[in-house]
Amino acid sequence: MSSEFDTDTTVERIGDNRWWAQITPRWNIGEVPNGGYLLATAGRVLAETLPQPDPLSVTAHYIRRAEAGPTEFEFQAMREGRNVSTGMVTMHQDGQEVARILGAYTDLADRQGKTIMQNGPPELPPLEECVTGQMPIEISKRFAFHFTQDSIQGFLGKPGDKAEIEGYVGFTDGREPDSLALLLIADACPPPIFNRVGIVGWVPTIELTVHVRARPAPGLLKCRFATRYLTDGLMEEDGEIWDSEDKLVALSRQMATLRLPKT
Amino acid sequence: MSSEFDTDTTVERIGDNRWWAQITPRWNIGEVPNGGYLLATAGRVLAETLPQPDPLSVTAHYIRRAEAGPTEFEFQAMREGRNVSTGMVTMHQDGQEVARILGAYTDLADRQGKTIMQNGPPELPPLEECVTGQMPIEISKRFAFHFTQDSIQGFLGKPGDKAEIEGYVGFTDGREPDSLALLLIADACPPPIFNRVGIVGWVPTIELTVHVRARPAPGLLKCRFATRYLTDGLMEEDGEIWDSEDKLVALSRQMATLRLPKT
Repeated sequence: MSSEFDTDTTVERIGDNRWWAQITPRWNIGEVPNGGYLLATAGRVLAETLPQPDPLSVTAHYIRRAEAGPTEFEFQAMREGRNVSTGMVTMHQDGQEVARILGAYTDLADRQGKTIMQNGPPELPPLEECVTGQMPIEISKRFAFHFTQDSIQGFLGKPGDKAEIEGYVGFTDGREPDSLALLLIADACPPPIFNRVGIVGWVPTIELTVHVRARPAPGLLKCRFATRYLTDGLMEEDGEIWDSEDKLVALSRQMATLRLPKT
Repeated sequence: MSSEFDTDTTVERIGDNRWWAQITPRWNIGEVPNGGYLLATAGRVLAETLPQPDPLSVTAHYIRRAEAGPTEFEFQAMREGRNVSTGMVTMHQDGQEVARILGAYTDLADRQGKTIMQNGPPELPPLEECVTGQMPIEISKRFAFHFTQDSIQGFLGKPGDKAEIEGYVGFTDGREPDSLALLLIADACPPPIFNRVGIVGWVPTIELTVHVRARPAPGLLKCRFATRYLTDGLMEEDGEIWDSEDKLVALSRQMATLRLPKT
């Protein structure tokens, strides 16, 4: 049986460099599909078309509000290389472009080179001491999030002094993580700014970039998401994703805006 | 008299959505133009064509080795919005694409919203206690870099335990920084990994993203560039740029590879 992630990112070739997918509402935040889900679906088009299988550095610009429904993708090859290949995917709904994705792909099984680590993975308490997060939004049902106690205080009405969230994450249906799934997981955590200011508004993403470093080992991932600088309503969300063997598997950064309700 | 930066990023419209520039060797590292210089030149095409003047989030994928010489740019509008507009620029040399840039632009003079800072600017010693860096490469002549003592030990053959570089930076000819120049400055610092391992090889950039938060005030900028994770030869370079009034003006991140000479 196919996992929710595999089913919902299925893409179908409908022509030369043209692909189609049904974006489902299962990864919605309110009425809007999660940006990481859109990125992973576009990333699958790139994986199907470029010679190498793994995303290495992938950037999405979200230019119009997407919704669940039929979606067309147009692929354009930029360069096919022996080690790294690069392509672009545009996503259209109802004839309008909703997002554009640039991606460099590689074969992460082949990587060789020097390793020097300045930091380690987040130091998480045992799973049973974490809080299993469920928010009243659709995407929250797809993930098993196990947050540290400190990470959820802002969501309980007790904002702290750090816009940071740490915890374990995996798919609810037990689907193991792979390099493609990291594109979604990098955007799946609730905005860390809410842990600093409370759930105060809406956080639309302008641009999301994910760097994938390695294929994750099976098991729950360890994540750290943080916003250090909110300036004039603009902020970064930086993510680190480590696998169950404490290997760094992805870094992510997005630029988002904090939109407060009009008073 | 026009500054070096303004002269060397001059772009000329040669047709509908087509632009031309002479990429000069003045920003070269060895035989190769600096990636931030290419980004700033493409960024100028976006500034000339999109309705808003300031880069907000701009990403470049470098797909072939560029060189100094005549360069063509093709612009494609993705969305024109009231607050944010997005476009794409492809750069060609000798008929081959060398880089592709996606950029969201805005008017940074108009920004309003909440500000919360988790960290401050790098704590730098007075200018006279810094080391004025000059490397035997062309781009080094264009910038006045004033590094902290700790930042240059790796370049003097005494690598330390941190892949980090901090210091003041400005254009040598006194040209004041603006939002466009930040795209270049975000890539102008020597690779911080050299401060950890020595000058050991070549560090080609795969992808560079710059988030601009504000227009900088006149005066020297304060910068912090760091690599925390080198894994299998892949690394991030994270940059923070603060202006002379201690305002955060840009964050940058690139994915680069550390290529060691064959032994």
